[in-house]
Amino acid sequence: MIAIGIDVGGTSIKGCAVNEEGKALDSFSMPLNKGDKGLDIVNNLIKITKEYLDFHGYDKSNTLGIGIGIPGSIDSEAGVIDYSNNIDFHNMEIVKMFQEKIDLPVKITNDANAAALGEARFGAGKKFKNIIVLTLGTGVGGGIIINGKLYEGAKGKGAELGHIIISLNGRPCSCGRHGCFEAYASATALVKDTMKAMEEDQNSIMWEIKNENGQVDGRTAFEAAKKGDKKALEVVDNYVSYLGEGMLNYFNIFRPDALILSGGIANQGPFLINKLVKYCQDRDYGYSCTPKVEILVSELGYDSGKIGAASLFFE
Amino acid sequence: MIAIGIDVGGTSIKGCAVNEEGKALDSFSMPLNKGDKGLDIVNNLIKITKEYLDFHGYDKSNTLGIGIGIPGSIDSEAGVIDYSNNIDFHNMEIVKMFQEKIDLPVKITNDANAAALGEARFGAGKKFKNIIVLTLGTGVGGGIIINGKLYEGAKGKGAELGHIIISLNGRPCSCGRHGCFEAYASATALVKDTMKAMEEDQNSIMWEIKNENGQVDGRTAFEAAKKGDKKALEVVDNYVSYLGEGMLNYFNIFRPDALILSGGIANQGPFLINKLVKYCQDRDYGYSCTPKVEILVSELGYDSGKIGAASLFFE
Repeated sequence: MIAIGIDVGGTSIKGCAVNEEGKALDSFSMPLNKGDKGLDIVNNLIKITKEYLDFHGYDKSNTLGIGIGIPGSIDSEAGVIDYSNNIDFHNMEIVKMFQEKIDLPVKITNDANAAALGEARFGAGKKFKNIIVLTLGTGVGGGIIINGKLYEGAKGKGAELGHIIISLNGRPCSCGRHGCFEAYASATALVKDTMKAMEEDQNSIMWEIKNENGQVDGRTAFEAAKKGDKKALEVVDNYVSYLGEGMLNYFNIFRPDALILSGGIANQGPFLINKLVKYCQDRDYGYSCTPKVEILVSELGYDSGKIGAASLFFE
Repeated sequence: MIAIGIDVGGTSIKGCAVNEEGKALDSFSMPLNKGDKGLDIVNNLIKITKEYLDFHGYDKSNTLGIGIGIPGSIDSEAGVIDYSNNIDFHNMEIVKMFQEKIDLPVKITNDANAAALGEARFGAGKKFKNIIVLTLGTGVGGGIIINGKLYEGAKGKGAELGHIIISLNGRPCSCGRHGCFEAYASATALVKDTMKAMEEDQNSIMWEIKNENGQVDGRTAFEAAKKGDKKALEVVDNYVSYLGEGMLNYFNIFRPDALILSGGIANQGPFLINKLVKYCQDRDYGYSCTPKVEILVSELGYDSGKIGAASLFFE
């Protein structure tokens, strides 16, 4: 049996069939243009999905259902997109619309949840039962896997893992509070901290790296730190302490088997992970009888969203 | 069918039978003295429990098992007390010891987890599915109920809900980190803040209340604030902001159906709860589509530990 996984992104919607081993088959995609009406997007997606199913002979006999990961505020219980920040979705009854045209079960979830489930089920987390996934990007997203199943909270509105205060009255956050984990550990925050440090040290080689790449991004401080730049190392070590403190919070709350990092920053590999492991080990709760949490990096990369959406049928 | 619930406290061990409606029947208790050897405590407890079972005719035919809530670091999977802070328990294989003498299933958990489960199953949380319980006492303890079941994390070491950083480089915590929720929202922290405020305002009526009661405790600032004392109100409002920020963190992580407060401070009733509800409503995540979390107060009080320990068999 296969399941269909669909990942709604900012510039395109991508889908594929996923088999029970988590392998992505027969991809399809549909472009999204700024200004597209939400209703048109969904109707188009249904049409394309239907053609795809017909073309490949996917139907009730061999297909468990269609899972869709969508950015924004998703009511997974009701099957409704409450709203999406960058796409024109408002109170969109997407599950009902799909089921009027396609005779298959349909489930939806938030895109970060879908990616987390994919990683847990078929990626870095496949050996584990209880897993936290943190996605370090523009913001900090995440997913909670308990006993191999996605935990979403009431109406699918939980797992806002970037929105815990780690610093009372700290940096302002897009959510309205001050001091959120996201305001310290996102790529956006790292870029801001990098720029501030560059202003403080005009001789830092971060300036050279900026000139070579044309911009400051989440890699600038890491690249310079690897070359021994002191100011850059300060930025990286501060970043590790912010990220580490948030991770330790999640260790203490969930004592998961593993915590998986995804998003661009996770690609810094051992240089970042070794620092994080050390930071967390030095501050972990309790004595030797407290089980250590494996700190891992995403394995599925950009496929995690599609594979995870399909995994809603493989839980 | 009934289950036996046993609550190990600092000065005594209390037990009872609990029926399927969550009613406590036929209590028993055993004193604990400072300096008692761990092995003697467990052997005594087994003896008393056995006599209790025999006397009341509780056996396999009518009893699901024996649940025990124990303070400290409990490996609930292995059935072992790793260590207890105030009782002489170290690597104590308590489940094995019970089962050698009594022919009933035995389960153990941390005492805060047990109390949370009791409250969730038969107390303030009985109508809800996903629940967070925060116990505000010497520290901040807690429990996580997911789909009506206790979530304990690897080897039962999760749900350390007082040990999340809410203030980077903040107040030192007994766990070794700085800025833990517990260091701001426990009764201990409130007492410290109250004393500091009293030093700052020699005219505060908190001094009178102290003189009447013989000491400063978790009620001092609340009593004075209710009488209109400005400095005391400042203490209370700061406390509400600390507690509120931690609660909002748990709202965003779990989006539970309810959050239940227990411990002495929770007895402040509507004066505290109304302030907390307002604080959280003003700062809650997302738009109107984010479901509100019910903020409730413990209903079972001191019985929650025993009833909760028995509830390990009613999940």
